[in-house]
Amino acid sequence: MITLDLTLPDCRYPIHIGRGLLDRAGELMAPVLPQPRALIVTNDVVAPLYLARLEASLAAAGIQTRAVVLPDGESHKDWQTLNLIFDALIDMRAERKTTLVALGGGVVGDMTGFAAACWQRGAPFVQVPTTLLAQVDSSVGGKTAINHPAGKNMIGAFWQPRLVLADIALLDSLPPRELSAGLAEVFKYGLIGDAGFFDWCEAQAAALMARDADALIHAVRRSCEMKADIVGQDEKEQGVRALLNLGHTFGHAIEAGLGFGVWLHGEAVAAGMLLAADLAAQLGRQSAGELDRIEALLAAVQLPVRAPDLGLDAWLSLMGHDKKVDGGHLRFVVPDGIGRASVESDVDADALARVLGGRFIAR
Amino acid sequence: MITLDLTLPDCRYPIHIGRGLLDRAGELMAPVLPQPRALIVTNDVVAPLYLARLEASLAAAGIQTRAVVLPDGESHKDWQTLNLIFDALIDMRAERKTTLVALGGGVVGDMTGFAAACWQRGAPFVQVPTTLLAQVDSSVGGKTAINHPAGKNMIGAFWQPRLVLADIALLDSLPPRELSAGLAEVFKYGLIGDAGFFDWCEAQAAALMARDADALIHAVRRSCEMKADIVGQDEKEQGVRALLNLGHTFGHAIEAGLGFGVWLHGEAVAAGMLLAADLAAQLGRQSAGELDRIEALLAAVQLPVRAPDLGLDAWLSLMGHDKKVDGGHLRFVVPDGIGRASVESDVDADALARVLGGRFIAR
Ligand SMILES: NC(=O)c1ccc[n+]([C@@H]2O[C@H](COP(=O)([O-])OP(=O)(O)OC[C@H]3O[C@@H](n4cnc5c(N)ncnc54)[C@H](O)[C@@H]3O)[C@@H](O)[C@H]2O)c1
Ligand SMILES: NC(=O)c1ccc[n+]([C@@H]2O[C@H](COP(=O)([O-])OP(=O)(O)OC[C@H]3O[C@@H](n4cnc5c(N)ncnc54)[C@H](O)[C@@H]3O)[C@@H](O)[C@H]2O)c1
Ligand SMILES: [Zn+2]
Ligand SMILES: [Zn+2]
Repeated sequence: MITLDLTLPDCRYPIHIGRGLLDRAGELMAPVLPQPRALIVTNDVVAPLYLARLEASLAAAGIQTRAVVLPDGESHKDWQTLNLIFDALIDMRAERKTTLVALGGGVVGDMTGFAAACWQRGAPFVQVPTTLLAQVDSSVGGKTAINHPAGKNMIGAFWQPRLVLADIALLDSLPPRELSAGLAEVFKYGLIGDAGFFDWCEAQAAALMARDADALIHAVRRSCEMKADIVGQDEKEQGVRALLNLGHTFGHAIEAGLGFGVWLHGEAVAAGMLLAADLAAQLGRQSAGELDRIEALLAAVQLPVRAPDLGLDAWLSLMGHDKKVDGGHLRFVVPDGIGRASVESDVDADALARVLGGRFIAR
Repeated sequence: MITLDLTLPDCRYPIHIGRGLLDRAGELMAPVLPQPRALIVTNDVVAPLYLARLEASLAAAGIQTRAVVLPDGESHKDWQTLNLIFDALIDMRAERKTTLVALGGGVVGDMTGFAAACWQRGAPFVQVPTTLLAQVDSSVGGKTAINHPAGKNMIGAFWQPRLVLADIALLDSLPPRELSAGLAEVFKYGLIGDAGFFDWCEAQAAALMARDADALIHAVRRSCEMKADIVGQDEKEQGVRALLNLGHTFGHAIEAGLGFGVWLHGEAVAAGMLLAADLAAQLGRQSAGELDRIEALLAAVQLPVRAPDLGLDAWLSLMGHDKKVDGGHLRFVVPDGIGRASVESDVDADALARVLGGRFIAR
């Protein structure tokens, strides 16, 4: 087991990474719970796979639990589903110190975290991420949210977990498309901040796709290290944390434009990263060779390398609803070569239009 | 105009108190808004009275506004109504820096604050409280929430406003019952922390009921000073802030037991304070003379001095759902005489039963 620490001005929490940690969940969690009671929040896909083992481990550590099983899917990341968590908390007479435990992917994690942030104005919570995307990204850093019908993650909170437990053995059951989607976020870390890690990803793409344990542990570890470092510098996304949004302005437009859930988040981010890289190329910050490397790596793990053709007006309007808009100017995170990125706060509309009619849009 | 400051580790904001401030709202707010755009949130009782003046004042200061008018009442302090705020924000293409302005009583203020806390994980907001209760209590200190059908304020956040603007002229239109309800919270400050202010309230009860401007300004000022001081010491209610809940454990049970909205919050708190004082008497901390003074002051401003008879089982069960429960022990804030109070964390069940069958329960 590897343990990383995320350190913020007001709190600090461990991220445990390894194979076979689920059965040690109780022992690892017990020291951080203010009260030996927890509500496990999961969904109807994950529950049959892992809920009983988590319950048994918590029970063995003397933690009393209840569980609530949500309907699966991004389309349920809404108020109605969030209320099922509140209903369960009411039903178990949960207190302010009762811990919520998220057992699932990013959807369960984001909703559980948001429910914890709001329950009696703030209850403790723990992340047990079960998708690669959740292990490398969404479970770390305290962003929580639900969707509004008109915009993704529009309603949420910054609320940090007490502990993150990433058991890569849980990824064995992950559908291949979900594995690939998680890899998009892994590669993002290389692109924005670690050229050597990007090289490693290129070399290990096949091992990652084969779910090789060592490769997965390294990928999760390096991703969490980088995320913890960035979030530690800028919890509330006033500066450097924005770099984590590489590909996300385009990606969110794809998700919203096609309807949430048609493309996976990581798939949209993959295509979005290519558009961001193309924008960088238009601005003279990326070479054709670098663009090719990014495209090749995404293709090697079956990620989409062409964004859907939403049409220029739809793209702009969908991106205008995006949170990364500041006073009407379109802001984009753009890579500077591989291993570095920056926020461009007033992107030239013509360059953007060339990208949105360019080679990375499906014809 | 009097200006108080509320100082917290991470922020500081002004509370402006005076008569006729509504028409200066734009000028007072402009310096604290990160962007000259705002969504005014109000309700269908307050909008016809004051919305146009607030809009005019903001427009004169160059602040672009939209307004959303919610249905009035505690029974609408729920997520359906909250979603009307989010819909309006989406509709106006609000950004993370767009400010929400609460124009209304505690219900509008609590919902607007919670919406601001959640909008894109945290947007600025301003309080323009229009009830006495909101001016002396709910608009200051950053507690925000909505109700769950099974429990009041169960879902919320700590989220501080950028500014509070308390114009006592707005109280001219307040129904008498609402004025009295606000006075219950005013008297609470005297009871928990300032015997001299309690004396002043006794002397000025008639002036307050007559809405004398000087009396109201002093009452709002002293209440906000005390609240700002307490919240400044303990923003997240880990200690001394709990004293502000004097009467509230009983009060919430009354509100929930009768159904939200049957008794006003301040009315329930008034009866609840008497029960807390009676509990103090049972524990030997309050004299019969002090109980009489509290009862007389409440009666002088037409507040209820008898709680409804919910029955012992209902009382206990309703209070068991209360947030101020810690590990199953019933916690109560009890006065120590007049001008001092403390948290009693393990109240004797027999003493409690005597109070709940005692002289302050309606027969
Ligand atoms: N909070 C953040 O910082 C952050 C960062 C990135 C993404 N996100 C959010 O995360 C969400 C995407 O997360 P996701 O990709 O994990 O999607 P997801 O939670 O929908 O999980 C994907 C699918 O895999 C299933 N699943 C989960 N674990 C499994 C397992 N071990 N075996 C088999 N099936 C399993 C799920 O039930 C679901 O059907 C989006 O809503 C996105 O907005 C949040
Ligand atoms: N956040 C906190 O710290 C805190 C503290 C105390 C109470 N509260 C909450 O505040 C709420 C109670 O607030 P309230 O007593 O202001 O109730 P309210 O907001 O329902 O207002 C009372 C009534 O007066 C009307 N009204 C408001 N201003 C008026 C005016 N100037 N003229 C005429 N009518 C007017 C309202 O429309 C409503 O019908 C409760 O929900 C309670 O939980 C919160
Ligand atoms: Zn992402
Ligand atoms: Zn109150």
